[in-house]
Formats: sequence, C-alpha cells, structure tokens
Amino acid sequence: MKATQLWFTEDQTPGYKVQWRLREVLHTEQTPFQELAIVDTYDFGKALLLDGIIQVTEKDHFIYNEMITHIPLSAHPNPRRVLIIGGGDGGALRECLKYETVERVDMVEIDEQVVANCEKYLPEIASEFRNPRARLIFEDGLKYIKTVQGEYDVVIVDSSDPVGPAVQLFERPFYEDVARALKDDGLMVCQSESPFFNIDVLRKVVTALRDLFPVVRPYLAVIPTYPSGLWSFTLASKKVDPLAVPRERLKARDTQYYNPDMFYGAFVLPEMVKRAIE
Amino acid sequence: MKATQLWFTEDQTPGYKVQWRLREVLHTEQTPFQELAIVDTYDFGKALLLDGIIQVTEKDHFIYNEMITHIPLSAHPNPRRVLIIGGGDGGALRECLKYETVERVDMVEIDEQVVANCEKYLPEIASEFRNPRARLIFEDGLKYIKTVQGEYDVVIVDSSDPVGPAVQLFERPFYEDVARALKDDGLMVCQSESPFFNIDVLRKVVTALRDLFPVVRPYLAVIPTYPSGLWSFTLASKKVDPLAVPRERLKARDTQYYNPDMFYGAFVLPEMVKRAIE
Repeated sequence: MKATQLWFTEDQTPGYKVQWRLREVLHTEQTPFQELAIVDTYDFGKALLLDGIIQVTEKDHFIYNEMITHIPLSAHPNPRRVLIIGGGDGGALRECLKYETVERVDMVEIDEQVVANCEKYLPEIASEFRNPRARLIFEDGLKYIKTVQGEYDVVIVDSSDPVGPAVQLFERPFYEDVARALKDDGLMVCQSESPFFNIDVLRKVVTALRDLFPVVRPYLAVIPTYPSGLWSFTLASKKVDPLAVPRERLKARDTQYYNPDMFYGAFVLPEMVKRAIE
Repeated sequence: MKATQLWFTEDQTPGYKVQWRLREVLHTEQTPFQELAIVDTYDFGKALLLDGIIQVTEKDHFIYNEMITHIPLSAHPNPRRVLIIGGGDGGALRECLKYETVERVDMVEIDEQVVANCEKYLPEIASEFRNPRARLIFEDGLKYIKTVQGEYDVVIVDSSDPVGPAVQLFERPFYEDVARALKDDGLMVCQSESPFFNIDVLRKVVTALRDLFPVVRPYLAVIPTYPSGLWSFTLASKKVDPLAVPRERLKARDTQYYNPDMFYGAFVLPEMVKRAIE
C-alpha cells in the first residue's frame, strides 16, 4: 500500500500511544483464545499482535528472546531439560537450542494458531519447531505444569501481559507448581513487565517468588517496541545465584544483545526500581 | 481541556510515531534559535519541546539529567570546576551541585528563553539557576569554548539532537576545543543519541573522540520519552578510566536512577552496540 497511509496504534497508557506505519495487514483471525494479527510495518519489519498488543517484531525480537533465555541458561551449570510456557513465536526455543547441554526443550503453548502463523509469517524467529530436540505441546501451561514434578532444570515463562489468557501466570499458585516441576537445583525465569509503567506487577511477582525460592533476582533489558522500552524479567532459583556465576564459565553464544558482560550488567537496577522492590 | 482530545505527536522515524495526550499547551514562542513549547501532558507531567521534539518531561527527566552528570562527576577524583554546554532546563546543573567538591558550574546556553521558560514552568527541574555556585552565560557554546583553556575538570555537553542549533556540537572541531578547555586530568561527556535508531551518530562521536582522548567509553541509560528508550552518552577522558574507579570511592547521591552499581552497569553495552563501535 503506497498512497493510503495505514497505521497501527497501541495505547500504552490512557494518555500515551505509539503508532507504526504498515505496509500491509497480512493476516487476522480470532483464535479460541485471542485476536491474532500479523502486520508488516515499515520500520520494524513483520510483527505479531495478540489482542491488539505488539508481541514481537522482526527488528527487535532478538532482545527479548535472548534475554529471557541466555540469562537463565547461562546461570544454570548444566541445563539439560528446559520447559518454555508460552513462547509461541519460537524465539526463546531457538535460543535454548544454542546450548549444547540441552537435550530437550518442551514448549507448552496454549494457542496452536500462534505457532502456525509465526511459522508461516516469521520463519526466521520461528525456525526450530521441527528441531528433534524440541517437543511442542498445545495445552494450557497452567494445567501442564501440575502434571510434572522434579523434571526440569530451567522453566521459562514467556507469557503475554497479565490480561487475557496469561493472568494466572503472574500469580503465586502457578509459581508453586513451577517450583515443584523444577529439579532441586533448578531455576525459573518470567517476564515481569515494565518497571516504568507497571512497577506493581514486578513488585507482586518478586514478592510471590521470594516466598518460594531462596534466590530471586530481577533483571532488565531495553526493548524498544514494549511500553517505555525498559523491560523486566525475574529469575528465581532453588540453589544457584546468578551473581555468583564465575565469569570464565560464560560463553559468547551467537547473539546480538546478550553477551557475558550483559549477564551481570542486566542485574544492575536503577535506584527507583531497586527501592520499589525492597 | 476535557471534552476535546488534544494530542502531541512526535515522528520518531518516518514510520513510527509517539503521541502524548495533553491537558493544555501552556506556552509557545519562536525564539531567535528555535520553536519552543511547554505542554502539560496527562501521563508524563509538563514537558519542554524544542522544534517539536520532547526534550524533558517531569516524569522521566531525572534519568537523563542524573546519567549525564553523575557518571562523569563520580569518575573524576576531585571535580571542582564544571562546564555545561546547553542544559537549559537546569537539570544537569542541579545534579552537579550535589557534589560538595564542585566550586563553580558554568552553564553556557545559547537560548535564554529556554532558561526563562523552564524556570517558570518546570521549577522543580530548573531549581538552581540562582545558586551562588552557578554562573549562567547566554552565549553560543561553540564560541565560548574557544575562549577557555585548561580551566575545567569536567565538561558536560547537554545538547539537543544534531539538527538545528546543535549540529556542530557533534563534530570534531568542537571536541578539539573541549579537549583544550579541560585540565590535564579532565574529562568530558556528551549525549550521543539512540544506538537503536541512530547508531551512526554514536559511531561518529566515538570515532572523533578516540582521535583526541586516550579513554573513550560510551554508556547507556533507558529514557522512556526518547526514541526507542535506549539512549547513549559518551565519556572521553584525558587520564581517568571510569571502569578503574574503585567502588569504595562512589557514594549514594540522592538520586532516583543513578546509584554506585549503575556507575559500572551503564558501561555494559549490548552486543550489537559493542560491535557497531569496534
């Protein structure tokens, strides 16, 4: 589309919105779980939207997907079995498979249509669904996690925002189930929203996890297409403290954002974030 | 204004724009140098715009102003004389005066109307123009810097984007003048734009400074109202390497973003930024 200007708008707060100019809306559908769209933006490449919110773009997906994966997988001394809850775009899965110790990644995605459409429209991100070390399970992560015990080294909770299908993934009963699904030296990570716009979400997640895990460490990355750019993840661990991981154990991993220095740098919190979760 | 929706739009790239809902446009004027506006936004408080670009908002100004000030002033072992070029909102000046060693801050701002309007509309940020340790000079920083030699411990180049009056502040001849204005153990810092949208600016600044200073260290902060959120500064030093500053010399300084851990954390660069400036 050239003559007609087509813009996608995301209301990030009631008084603050972001707009992307589109070449084309490639696909829309109402799945059993959410409204799904694939759009082609001028400046960020193709993007997946769920319920009108940008989830992933070709231009900056690597930041989120590397940071939700390489921090926990580099923190764990020997990650062999990994569970991803959500992660339907396939980016976290792709990063997990860069670890030669990883024998199998189970990915539990509630919405099969997310996987199907990412494979079709975002093949560079969704590149590893057919990898023999990957096992896709189309099921509600909340239900699946109750069926496993002491099975995983690392659990990655790669969810959308705490509205719609992902609400309970931000609540304590779910984290109890994750703790049970982990081995005795296991660790989990979840995305915990923008500390700039939604510090309450981060505070709630950290508080709930501190009741269940001896080591809880929030960390940050800058993701331009997410509200405010400042994005948080929270790592919770039964044994290993990521800040005690020796530098010489960390490797370069064919990444564009993550690197061994960032492994430590990401845990440095701005003063207002540090104070808010004390 | 309630019934009428009033929105301010900033085109951050040709296909990506950000909009803030406004309560009111408080002031507009054409100064001899630029178009100046003060607006009252719903979600970021009052804001200063120059030539249609958001410079500073009440909600997140502290991030930029702390990071352009506390990193260089904490890196220098004994900052006594500081020069700010630009900085008309007064935020960097306010932060400089938190250092008890600082005897005088000279602030050279080309546009007196920026200072006058910030003092009127953003008094919490522009709070120290009348401090006895502050000296305001309304002059072109490019001209002023040629008149001084070996005078400053720290020079802070707090400029707007490299369009309009600030273009030459991103070029080598100016940096040569800054080097001359610094004492033998002095250091400078400048804002060097978004590495996500404008990596060429950062690359050019770093390259020019590496020709003139033995130590050049870019660092980052997350500033939600600036394009992409990811913002760079570049520190260039004649002697001190900030990464060699001992932890015990760093103090807490009544800040909301900066803290002693952030002093080191800010220098950790994402892999794509690191590679781009190699």
